[in-house]
Amino acid sequence: MRQLKQLMEEITRRVDTNLREFDMDSSNYIRSALPMSHFMRFYAFYGITSNHPIDFHFGRSSLAGSYFLSRCHVNSSILHKTDVRGDELKRRGQVFHLGGREILMHQDECIRVQHSFLVKTLVHSYNHDPEFPEFYSIVNTFAAPYANIHGSAIRGCLLGPFATLDLTTVHDCMIGPFAYVQTGQISHTAVEPGSVWIEHGSDFRFHYQFPKDALQEYVRYDAKRGVQGRLVAFIRQRKRHFQEIFDVVHFNRSDNTHRSTALNRYAVVRGGTRISENVLVAQRAYLENADLGKGANAQENCYIVDSCLQGFNVMAHGAKIIHARLGEKGFVGFNAFLRGSPQAPLDIGHHSIVMPHTIIDTETALQIPPEHLVWGLIRNPQELAENSISLEKLSQHNQGFRQGRLVFDGSGKTFVEQFQKRIEHILLDNGAYFDGRQKRGHAQQGQNIAFNIIQPYTTGPRRGLFPTMNIHEGTG
Amino acid sequence: MRQLKQLMEEITRRVDTNLREFDMDSSNYIRSALPMSHFMRFYAFYGITSNHPIDFHFGRSSLAGSYFLSRCHVNSSILHKTDVRGDELKRRGQVFHLGGREILMHQDECIRVQHSFLVKTLVHSYNHDPEFPEFYSIVNTFAAPYANIHGSAIRGCLLGPFATLDLTTVHDCMIGPFAYVQTGQISHTAVEPGSVWIEHGSDFRFHYQFPKDALQEYVRYDAKRGVQGRLVAFIRQRKRHFQEIFDVVHFNRSDNTHRSTALNRYAVVRGGTRISENVLVAQRAYLENADLGKGANAQENCYIVDSCLQGFNVMAHGAKIIHARLGEKGFVGFNAFLRGSPQAPLDIGHHSIVMPHTIIDTETALQIPPEHLVWGLIRNPQELAENSISLEKLSQHNQGFRQGRLVFDGSGKTFVEQFQKRIEHILLDNGAYFDGRQKRGHAQQGQNIAFNIIQPYTTGPRRGLFPTMNIHEGTG
Repeated sequence: MRQLKQLMEEITRRVDTNLREFDMDSSNYIRSALPMSHFMRFYAFYGITSNHPIDFHFGRSSLAGSYFLSRCHVNSSILHKTDVRGDELKRRGQVFHLGGREILMHQDECIRVQHSFLVKTLVHSYNHDPEFPEFYSIVNTFAAPYANIHGSAIRGCLLGPFATLDLTTVHDCMIGPFAYVQTGQISHTAVEPGSVWIEHGSDFRFHYQFPKDALQEYVRYDAKRGVQGRLVAFIRQRKRHFQEIFDVVHFNRSDNTHRSTALNRYAVVRGGTRISENVLVAQRAYLENADLGKGANAQENCYIVDSCLQGFNVMAHGAKIIHARLGEKGFVGFNAFLRGSPQAPLDIGHHSIVMPHTIIDTETALQIPPEHLVWGLIRNPQELAENSISLEKLSQHNQGFRQGRLVFDGSGKTFVEQFQKRIEHILLDNGAYFDGRQKRGHAQQGQNIAFNIIQPYTTGPRRGLFPTMNIHEGTG
Repeated sequence: MRQLKQLMEEITRRVDTNLREFDMDSSNYIRSALPMSHFMRFYAFYGITSNHPIDFHFGRSSLAGSYFLSRCHVNSSILHKTDVRGDELKRRGQVFHLGGREILMHQDECIRVQHSFLVKTLVHSYNHDPEFPEFYSIVNTFAAPYANIHGSAIRGCLLGPFATLDLTTVHDCMIGPFAYVQTGQISHTAVEPGSVWIEHGSDFRFHYQFPKDALQEYVRYDAKRGVQGRLVAFIRQRKRHFQEIFDVVHFNRSDNTHRSTALNRYAVVRGGTRISENVLVAQRAYLENADLGKGANAQENCYIVDSCLQGFNVMAHGAKIIHARLGEKGFVGFNAFLRGSPQAPLDIGHHSIVMPHTIIDTETALQIPPEHLVWGLIRNPQELAENSISLEKLSQHNQGFRQGRLVFDGSGKTFVEQFQKRIEHILLDNGAYFDGRQKRGHAQQGQNIAFNIIQPYTTGPRRGLFPTMNIHEGTG
C-alpha cells in the first residue's frame, strides 16, 4: 500500500499547488475521502463494444469500483466508483462547432485523467474547449462524491459533493458543494455552494443562489465527516440493491427489454418497473416502480422511484425523481432532487424544464404547469411561484430581471432556445428518436457491451494499485 | 465473426503446413472443436499477484474461458478454457540446469502462443529446451481437450485429447489421444494413441502401449463427434458444479482454509471435503468428499472424489482419483484415471508411483503395495501384477526387461532416482514443505490472486475476438 499512499500525497500536493491562491489544504479531504480498505474491495470494469473506439490506458492508478467506456487514459490517479463514459467523444473526420469555430478532428478524442482523485464522479460528453479538442483532460483535481464533469476540461480544481461542471473549461477553481457552473470557461474563482450559474458570453446570464441554511439540510460537507444531508441519505438507503448486481459476472434479467432500448446490466431495476422503447438506462441508475415512456432516459446516478416519465424525457446525470409524473418532453437537469410523496405528489407538465441542481421536496401536492422553467429550492406553492416562470414569459425578457434569488441578465429568448436545442440534442444522442433504421443513439449502441472486470494488487507495495494496462482494437 | 473465422482458417493452414508429411487435414478437427456460440459465452480471466511478474499480451485472439498467470503473450490464437499458468517460468538472474548445461537467465521467461488452437489445454512449468530458454513457445499447434503441455516448447503439432507433452521440445509431430511423451525432444514423429513413452538419452527408456480396443472405451476421438469415452463422460457429469463458481465475481467460501494453503477460488469444493496445511488446489480442480493431507496438491483438471490423500501427495495435472486412499508421498501422474468404487475400493501404498496416463478401473478391491510403480491399464489383480513392480526390484534392473506391454531399457535405478527427485521438486515447488518461514511454494504464493475478467467483442466483424491488451507492472 506504500505506493498508493505516495500517490495520494502526490495528488494532494498537485491540487494544493494549483489552488495555492486559496491557501488550500486538500489533504484532509483526500485522506478522509475513503477508508483504505475500499481500495481493495471493489473491482473496476470497462466496456467493449464494436460501436465505440477502444483505447484504454491505465497506469499507476487505483480504479476501484470505476467504469470506463471508449478512449480513456488514466495515469497516477485515484478513481473510486467513478464513471468515465467516452461514448460521445469526438471522432476522427468529424467536424465540430466549438466556440463559434468549425473544427475538423484529425484524430479520435481521448479522455485523459492525470494526478486526480475522483470519488463517485461522472465524466461524460466531450471536451467543448476549442483550444485543445483532441484531449478531454482532467488534471490535478479532487472531486468529492457525486460531482459531474460534463464536457469540461479541468486543471487544478476542487469540486465539492454534487457539484457540476458543464461544458466549461476550468483552471484553478474551488467549486462549492451542489454548485452548477456552465460558463464556457472559468479560472481562479471560488464558486459558492449552491450557486447555479449559467453564462453564455454577452447573450445571457442565469444565476441562482441557494439559501445557505436550507442547502445545508440537503448537502453539507466537511473534511472530517465527508458528505452529509438528505441527498446522500437518500442514496445510502438504496445502496445495498447495487451490491447484488455487482456480485455476478453476467446479470441476466428475467424481463425482456425492447430491441431499441439499452438497459445497462449495472442498473438496478426493482418491482413494478416498465421500460418502453428507445430508452437508455445507464450503469448505476436505479429504477423502482418506474414507468419509462418511449425515448426516456436515466443516466448515471439517476433514481426514478414511484414515478412516471411520459416519454422523450431527459433525466440528466444524477437527477432523482420520486412520487412524480414527468410530462412528455419534460427535462430534469443534473443532480436535481425532485421528491414528492404519496400525500404530496409532484406533477411536472409537458415540455417543462427543471433546471440542474433544483431541489423540489414537496410539503403539499405541487403542480408545475406545462412549458415552464423551474429552479432552486421549492417545497410549497409559494416557493414554486417564486422559482418558476413560463417559457413564453421568459422569452419575452430581453433586459434581464430578478425573481426571488434568481438574477437573470440578457436575452430570455436566446436562453430558452439554446436550452431547448440542447434537450433535442440530448434526446437525439440518446437514441430517443430511433425509427428502427435511422437516428441511432446510445439506447441502441449501448446494447451488447461486454464488461471486463479488472482488479488491483492485493498484496505487496503496489497493494491497491492496478497493473499497467493498454487495451485497444488491434490490427486484426 | 468474420475475423474469427479467418483466424481459424489461418491456424488450420499453419498446422497443416507443419504436418504436411503426414498429409494432415486439421480443418475437420478445428472446425468441429467448438460450436461458434462458445466463443462468446465464456469470459477469460487472468491473475494479478505481487509474487509473480505480470506481463500479459493478448492480440487478435479468442480466449473464451481461459486463464492466464504471469508472463504470457498470445497472438493470433484461439485458447478455449485453457490454463496458461506461468508461475514456474524462469526468472532473470536465476541459473538453470538444462540439457547438462548451466544457463543464466538475462531476462524473465515468457510463454508465447502463436497461431495455435488449444482446447481445455493445460500449459505449465517452464521451457526445458536449453536452446531458447527465454521463450516458452507454442506455435502452429492444435490441442484437443485435456491435453497437457508441460515444460515443452512445441512447433507444428496436433495433440489428441488427454495427450501430454512433458519436458520435451516437439517439432512437427502428431501425438495420439492419451499418449504421454517425455523424451527431451522429438520431431517428425507420429506417436500412437495410448503410448506412454519416457526416454532419457542413453540412461533409460520406458515404453508402454495401451491395448487399442480397451483404450477406445476410455478415450476415443474423431473429427465429427469429438472426444468420447469414459474419461470425458466422467468430467461431463460434474461440469455443472463449475458453473456456479464461474458466475460470481468474488467467490467466498464459508470454510476457513489454512494460512499456508492455496485453495483457488475457481476450484469446486463439495461436501465432506477437508483440506490440511501446505495444500495447493489449482483452478478447475474438483474436490468432493476429499481429504487432502498436509502438503498434498490437486492441479488443474484434477478430480478427487470420495478419496483420502494422506499427505505430501502429488496429483499431477488432469489426474483423477475416486474411492481411493493414496498413502503418504504417493504420486499420481498426468491424466491418470484411478477409479475405485464403494464395492471395489483402491488402496495405494505410501511412496508408490502411479505413472502418468495410468487407468485403474477396479472390478474388485485393489491394493497397490508401498513403494511400487504402476502403469498402463489395471482393472483386476492379474492386470495389477502385470503392470506393477516394486521400486526396489526396478532399481535392480540395469539391462532392461519386458513385462506385459511394457518395454524397459537401460538403468532402472536411474529411472527411479530421477522420478523420485522430480517428485521432491514438485512438492518443493508446490510449497508442501513450507515451515512457516522457508520453503515457500505455490501453496503460499498462489494465495491473494486477484482475478481479472475479460470479454470478447459481442458484435461486429471482431465478434468473438478480444481487444488487444498489454498488461504489465508499470514503473510506479
